Amino acid sequence: MLPCLVPPIAVRPRHDTDHADRIALSAATTDGVHMRTEDVRAWIVERREANVFHVEHIPFADLDQWGFEAVTGNLVHRSGRFFAIEGLHVIEHDGPHGDGPYREWQQPVIKQPEVGILGILCKEFDGVLHFLMQAKMEPGNPNLVQLSPTVQATRSNYTKAHGGTDVKLLEYFAPPDPERVIADVLQAEQGSWFFRKTNRNMIVETVDDVPVWDDFCWLTLGQIAELMHADETINMNARSVLSCLPFHDTAAGALFSDIQLLSWFTNERSRHDVRARRIPLTDVCGWKQGVETIEHEDGRYFKVRAVAVKGSNREKVSWTQPLLESVGTGVAAFLMREIDGVPHVLAHARADGGFLDTVELAPTVQCTPQNYAHLPAESRPPFLDAVLDAPKSRIRYEAIHSEEGGRFLNVRARYLVIDADDTIDPPPGYAWVTPGQLTALTRHGHYVNVEARTLLACVNAAAAQPQGGA
Amino acid sequence: MLPCLVPPIAVRPRHDTDHADRIALSAATTDGVHMRTEDVRAWIVERREANVFHVEHIPFADLDQWGFEAVTGNLVHRSGRFFAIEGLHVIEHDGPHGDGPYREWQQPVIKQPEVGILGILCKEFDGVLHFLMQAKMEPGNPNLVQLSPTVQATRSNYTKAHGGTDVKLLEYFAPPDPERVIADVLQAEQGSWFFRKTNRNMIVETVDDVPVWDDFCWLTLGQIAELMHADETINMNARSVLSCLPFHDTAAGALFSDIQLLSWFTNERSRHDVRARRIPLTDVCGWKQGVETIEHEDGRYFKVRAVAVKGSNREKVSWTQPLLESVGTGVAAFLMREIDGVPHVLAHARADGGFLDTVELAPTVQCTPQNYAHLPAESRPPFLDAVLDAPKSRIRYEAIHSEEGGRFLNVRARYLVIDADDTIDPPPGYAWVTPGQLTALTRHGHYVNVEARTLLACVNAAAAQPQGGA
Repeated sequence: MLPCLVPPIAVRPRHDTDHADRIALSAATTDGVHMRTEDVRAWIVERREANVFHVEHIPFADLDQWGFEAVTGNLVHRSGRFFAIEGLHVIEHDGPHGDGPYREWQQPVIKQPEVGILGILCKEFDGVLHFLMQAKMEPGNPNLVQLSPTVQATRSNYTKAHGGTDVKLLEYFAPPDPERVIADVLQAEQGSWFFRKTNRNMIVETVDDVPVWDDFCWLTLGQIAELMHADETINMNARSVLSCLPFHDTAAGALFSDIQLLSWFTNERSRHDVRARRIPLTDVCGWKQGVETIEHEDGRYFKVRAVAVKGSNREKVSWTQPLLESVGTGVAAFLMREIDGVPHVLAHARADGGFLDTVELAPTVQCTPQNYAHLPAESRPPFLDAVLDAPKSRIRYEAIHSEEGGRFLNVRARYLVIDADDTIDPPPGYAWVTPGQLTALTRHGHYVNVEARTLLACVNAAAAQPQGGA
Repeated sequence: MLPCLVPPIAVRPRHDTDHADRIALSAATTDGVHMRTEDVRAWIVERREANVFHVEHIPFADLDQWGFEAVTGNLVHRSGRFFAIEGLHVIEHDGPHGDGPYREWQQPVIKQPEVGILGILCKEFDGVLHFLMQAKMEPGNPNLVQLSPTVQATRSNYTKAHGGTDVKLLEYFAPPDPERVIADVLQAEQGSWFFRKTNRNMIVETVDDVPVWDDFCWLTLGQIAELMHADETINMNARSVLSCLPFHDTAAGALFSDIQLLSWFTNERSRHDVRARRIPLTDVCGWKQGVETIEHEDGRYFKVRAVAVKGSNREKVSWTQPLLESVGTGVAAFLMREIDGVPHVLAHARADGGFLDTVELAPTVQCTPQNYAHLPAESRPPFLDAVLDAPKSRIRYEAIHSEEGGRFLNVRARYLVIDADDTIDPPPGYAWVTPGQLTALTRHGHYVNVEARTLLACVNAAAAQPQGGA
């Protein structure tokens, strides 16, 4: 189907309330028609064992089709496609009159200008929306196989730049049937590791008989919510797409009206002056290149590594590629409080060198604590200690999730939602917003960063399945 | 007042319907308390004559504080602030699989990374919102003085990088009182001439007694709508800010629901692959540099020139600066049709090298026809001939407006809204949208381009004051 919209002869309402009602029903439904929730994790393990996967570290010199470019030293694919590891020089010069803090640094960064597709197909069974999830192997996942969107494909994937097999069910997303689109938005990924990478996050409904291959499974949102309480089960791309579900906001209101929130956000974007410039990888100061790794001189942040992958259910059976490996487990946490009975989370307008547009809304705390261990308490990120020291009784949600296993190697973070002390007075750059407001913002790109999108999906899961555990 | 939002103890509704009602009342009010509409143009002429303004062309060598950088040849200010003329290399590689048209070119471009403020202050008089407009001289305006927003200031202006006087009434905007913000959004400007320039478009209410200096005037939206029918009276910045007014959508619906429209737009952004890279001005191919101009080898597009300005009511009394001069009068037109009695305009998802994010919604036709005069009919922009040949009876709105007089010299375009032939079948990249949908999108940046924002303000003006003329 062509993306050209063929006009019917009549107008329709601008807002589709029908989607919201059916999403709410799916979230309230914990029994799926296809598989019991308690069997899903065993099925994932079975899928891992049904296929032979090996991931091993290799020296950069053993990469196939990848190599360091002569002049720049950038780590690139021979085809010029997929992604590249380049250098980034960032200058932050903040404050309303350029009188705020000044920071400047250089780092390796993943440059991936192609827009990929992350699409979840959904369909009603017995009157309830089910979402088609895929048990997908990604070399950087600690447990290799996690639940991913129905389709997860870079442009190079689906144009077959690496000569792999067809991407299954891609036809539902590229482009989608305009009559059946529930969400479709370009969202950015990690601004500290990617340079302006965005993926197309889509949810599309179908009434077709869809073949269900061994690696696929239809689940209700209630089932997915329960699985969101398990460690390393729902992959980053799936969490991101799920955060874009147009849940209806049933709250009475919010601390700030939407225009007040947008104005605050605009002010945050305006007062940060972030200039990020790509530089040759070979010019990056403070990092050293070895046979198997590129790493920071003090061992902080992350390492660039190379792996060899052998798998059987992926588009291509074996390949080598670079991955970024974190130096420690991250923390991403929202402080939450109720105001007038309405839950609010404390969002942080965070500037990152890789953001397309200066700042995005991030969790209250988002960092790898190890990177700050050498600093005095006052130089550590705000609220970090409050989050790390939170008593069990204040933790509303907790799970370990890993980040994009196609680019990151064993990069994990503890995702937390924590009851806040009511006396917290947000410092500049922080604001109390409702999950409903964040949901409204995910209709558009570059407002809610990928870590906050994961947490939004977790908050929605905790609301649907407050008992936790799995 | 600090931008930190101090929480009250209660939630409020997320949507402020009160603003929309009061905006509608102001649009319906054609008599202002301060000045009669028919006197405004005479007052603008009086303000021009009350101040002595001279603008003259000078050779680049006579620029003060500006010069060509040694290695790059970029035209820069000695302070490193304001803006710079650099080179841009653009590659467009379109199509869902990179199989669409391929274009590649180089051009000079204005690089201005600082976010400026364009703010209109409003206040109720006799229960009706009036908006404070300024009669402002800008060296590039053909008639020098036009109505601008209350505040129009680059960061360098208001931090006094050029040692000028204080910007009047800036305190209402930097930052605004959260309780009185009506619109506050970062919007982009010309993507063909600026590299990723954005300004903060703001509308803020006050209940204060505001001093009214000689160059300022309170007007209702009904009065401004009438003035929008006059040539070269409301400047580009004012038109842009006015397009962000949250008019209530009274239409029954739209051809496409909002999510369908967003999905179509996301598809347009995804299928265009635009890579724009800044290059030294000295490396730009196809352009030649003279003593007084930098121009295209075939005389097309625009010229870079230098001017000396002497004025008395501006922040700084005399200065020199570069400006971009167009080679002809542009055309920016929306084709319009009613569907089920609801007006729709044909928006174009336009890719420009200077856009931050690939495409923005543009008028149906937006070009300088002279640049296409040498091409065969099939290579001219779609709908251009339909617009140029439209009979008078189909023209719903027409006026000449000029573009930002602080950067552009005598750059004018005919802005048109034309009744479309009902048989038009939108080609790929074009979609029928309602003015209400465009208004909703102007709450966010990078959806509606600056020419379409001008036309949206014109459409709203034509709806408020359908009689036209002035």
